Amino acid sequence: MNLGILGGGQLGRMIALAGYPLGARATVLEPGTNSSAGQVCAHLPGEFDDLQALYRLAQASDVVTFEFENVPVEAARWLAERVPVYPPPGALEVSQERLAEKQFFQRLGIPTPPFAAIETEADFRAAVAEIGLPAVLKTRRFGYDGKGQAVIRTPQDADAAWQKLGGRPLILEGFVPFDRELSLVAVRGRDGQIVTYPLIENVHQDGILHRSVAPAPDLGEELSERAAEFAARVLTELNYVGVLTIEWFQEGARLLANEMAPRVHNSGHWTIEGALTSQFENHVRAVCGLPLGRADAVGCSVMYNFIGSVPPTEQVLANPDAHLHLYGKGPRPGRKVGHVTLRAASAAELQEKLPEWDAQFARGPQ
Amino acid sequence: MNLGILGGGQLGRMIALAGYPLGARATVLEPGTNSSAGQVCAHLPGEFDDLQALYRLAQASDVVTFEFENVPVEAARWLAERVPVYPPPGALEVSQERLAEKQFFQRLGIPTPPFAAIETEADFRAAVAEIGLPAVLKTRRFGYDGKGQAVIRTPQDADAAWQKLGGRPLILEGFVPFDRELSLVAVRGRDGQIVTYPLIENVHQDGILHRSVAPAPDLGEELSERAAEFAARVLTELNYVGVLTIEWFQEGARLLANEMAPRVHNSGHWTIEGALTSQFENHVRAVCGLPLGRADAVGCSVMYNFIGSVPPTEQVLANPDAHLHLYGKGPRPGRKVGHVTLRAASAAELQEKLPEWDAQFARGPQ
Ligand SMILES: Nc1ncnc2c1ncn2[C@@H]1O[C@H](COP(=O)(O)OP(=O)(O)OP(=O)(O)O)[C@@H](O)[C@H]1O
Ligand SMILES: Nc1ncnc2c1ncn2[C@@H]1O[C@H](COP(=O)(O)OP(=O)(O)OP(=O)(O)O)[C@@H](O)[C@H]1O
Repeated sequence: MNLGILGGGQLGRMIALAGYPLGARATVLEPGTNSSAGQVCAHLPGEFDDLQALYRLAQASDVVTFEFENVPVEAARWLAERVPVYPPPGALEVSQERLAEKQFFQRLGIPTPPFAAIETEADFRAAVAEIGLPAVLKTRRFGYDGKGQAVIRTPQDADAAWQKLGGRPLILEGFVPFDRELSLVAVRGRDGQIVTYPLIENVHQDGILHRSVAPAPDLGEELSERAAEFAARVLTELNYVGVLTIEWFQEGARLLANEMAPRVHNSGHWTIEGALTSQFENHVRAVCGLPLGRADAVGCSVMYNFIGSVPPTEQVLANPDAHLHLYGKGPRPGRKVGHVTLRAASAAELQEKLPEWDAQFARGPQ
Repeated sequence: MNLGILGGGQLGRMIALAGYPLGARATVLEPGTNSSAGQVCAHLPGEFDDLQALYRLAQASDVVTFEFENVPVEAARWLAERVPVYPPPGALEVSQERLAEKQFFQRLGIPTPPFAAIETEADFRAAVAEIGLPAVLKTRRFGYDGKGQAVIRTPQDADAAWQKLGGRPLILEGFVPFDRELSLVAVRGRDGQIVTYPLIENVHQDGILHRSVAPAPDLGEELSERAAEFAARVLTELNYVGVLTIEWFQEGARLLANEMAPRVHNSGHWTIEGALTSQFENHVRAVCGLPLGRADAVGCSVMYNFIGSVPPTEQVLANPDAHLHLYGKGPRPGRKVGHVTLRAASAAELQEKLPEWDAQFARGPQ
């Protein structure tokens, strides 16, 4: 089975590595000649809107997937006329536009923060009055790692936010005083089978995921079931195939959907060691039309991202619980260059070890 | 870190895959242009005694290891003058010759079956008289998967065995009426750190490993400790670096060493899913001079080899506990082409599920 992947970053790399044992050999399409994924599988250099490159990828692949959500939808649709493309391009379309995404959640009865569509300054002023402060103004497209956003706490902030972002299609969201951020990784097979990983607790720093703990501590069963049920609605509605991630705000007993990513997700990296089947393997299984593996957690895991640079390997592995994942990328500020996962046998053991692990791997705010 | 590997089979493939997350990029030396490992990493075509090919491997590598034990010792020594080679070539030397190997065990106080060196027919007759029947006559070199052996139960068998094997250096061993076969996978780091996986119970069919269960059921703690202590003697004596496997016969409370393999081992494949750190990862860590990871089992695992051919992937994965590993090799009778590992949360759960798993994956004797 030949698996084409749009994008050659670390997510593509880990998909490619998960594919080999299943007999799936990956080719990534990625501009340039060096890429994280291209170090572990075939690399086809090319832009994502270059029809010749897309054609070559289609020729080389029995099925095509993607590893980032800003794939041009037209490219995905063009490919889908030539070779099966999973997840379906329609899922890309919804998740690339924050307004469409929030409206989609709303239509499926999935709670979200209050939001309003903004085109003009008049829209903006009216929305601020209606939603109230604090609020967050966001571009509708191409946001990632907290970029293209402004938090508005005061009327002066509102002016500054409009200065910075106004003139493009925007969305204003009520600022949720959340207790914590959670994410849910779920997979749907070609035959409609769904498996759902446990909810994950995420901490961001400077808008970038910093630490994930899975299963999220102190979860009521009710919350987990609700999140899984919401995810199933999304997967089914989109006729989805592959891994999908939904990011949530938890506020007391409420779950509010923040956004979704139609792909394997940074907050699911712990599944390599910490779940019966990794998100990467289950993504490959799904897009290749194979039955899915169990998604249960084995013990409790914590994952830390390495941003900008990685500590020396010997130093990381001096911790006998550390599982290191390097992405083969050079150092650069703000760049995700690797991660480490540590696993404990139980939630209690994890809580006991967490301060020590945080001391070794948590970054101070930068 | 560039890792050279002599041999391009499935063991090399799984070492290469385990290396990527640690930043180790593998190049395998293997005759021919297609190989199991060469599908997942760089492939240098060449014979193992071709100095030009060895030179190119040394140039491409920061450290060199091997994935089969019949590597020419001179090639390993020649390489070791140019680049660090782990495990040490001396370990190859001992394990390539059954007589030296048994004498080595004996010298370290590790029990073995009774054995005698055979050169001539007179040696043979005397040894049969002394050791008694049943016994096993084996070539000293190049045996694998039970090849180059003859079991002798009757005087007529003795004549036939001599007809078949006589004329080469041989060893006669007393036939051990063992209760079961076990193996122990252990790893030693460059700094002398040793970690030991739990004992594994192995069933062979037609001389080829068929099924491994780990940890081996119904093990006394005493037996596990003794095996680990024996392994530590071997590792220390050889100043070993990397994974080493020792195969044992268990007869009541006795452990008799059958042979050792200076490499990752088929009976350790379950460690990918079933141990905190896989044998492949720990081998990479050891040879690259990194600290070792924990070798504890997580729950209980069973591994079945696929010999000759693999059932359809959908069929294997229809079992939600199945973890499939394909080697990218074409079908051929007697060839190891893949394996499947299934994991249970406890020994009791494993025993409960084993009949069903055996029914799906165990081969009848062929
Ligand atoms: N409505 C909100 N209320 C409170 N905090 C918010 C809100 N929206 C965003 N945030 C904060 O900003 C972070 C980034 O927001 P969001 O997920 O929308 O951005 P992004 O750029 O798409 O990030 P990602 O890289 O995770 O996709 C969130 O994780 C959360 O901490
Ligand atoms: N002395 C013995 N007593 C009883 N059975 C034996 C003896 N020696 C070998 N056997 C049986 O034959 C099998 C193969 O023997 P051995 O391990 O020596 O062969 P090999 O060809 O080196 O196999 P491998 O591929 O495992 O290295 C053993 O696993 C065991 O079942």
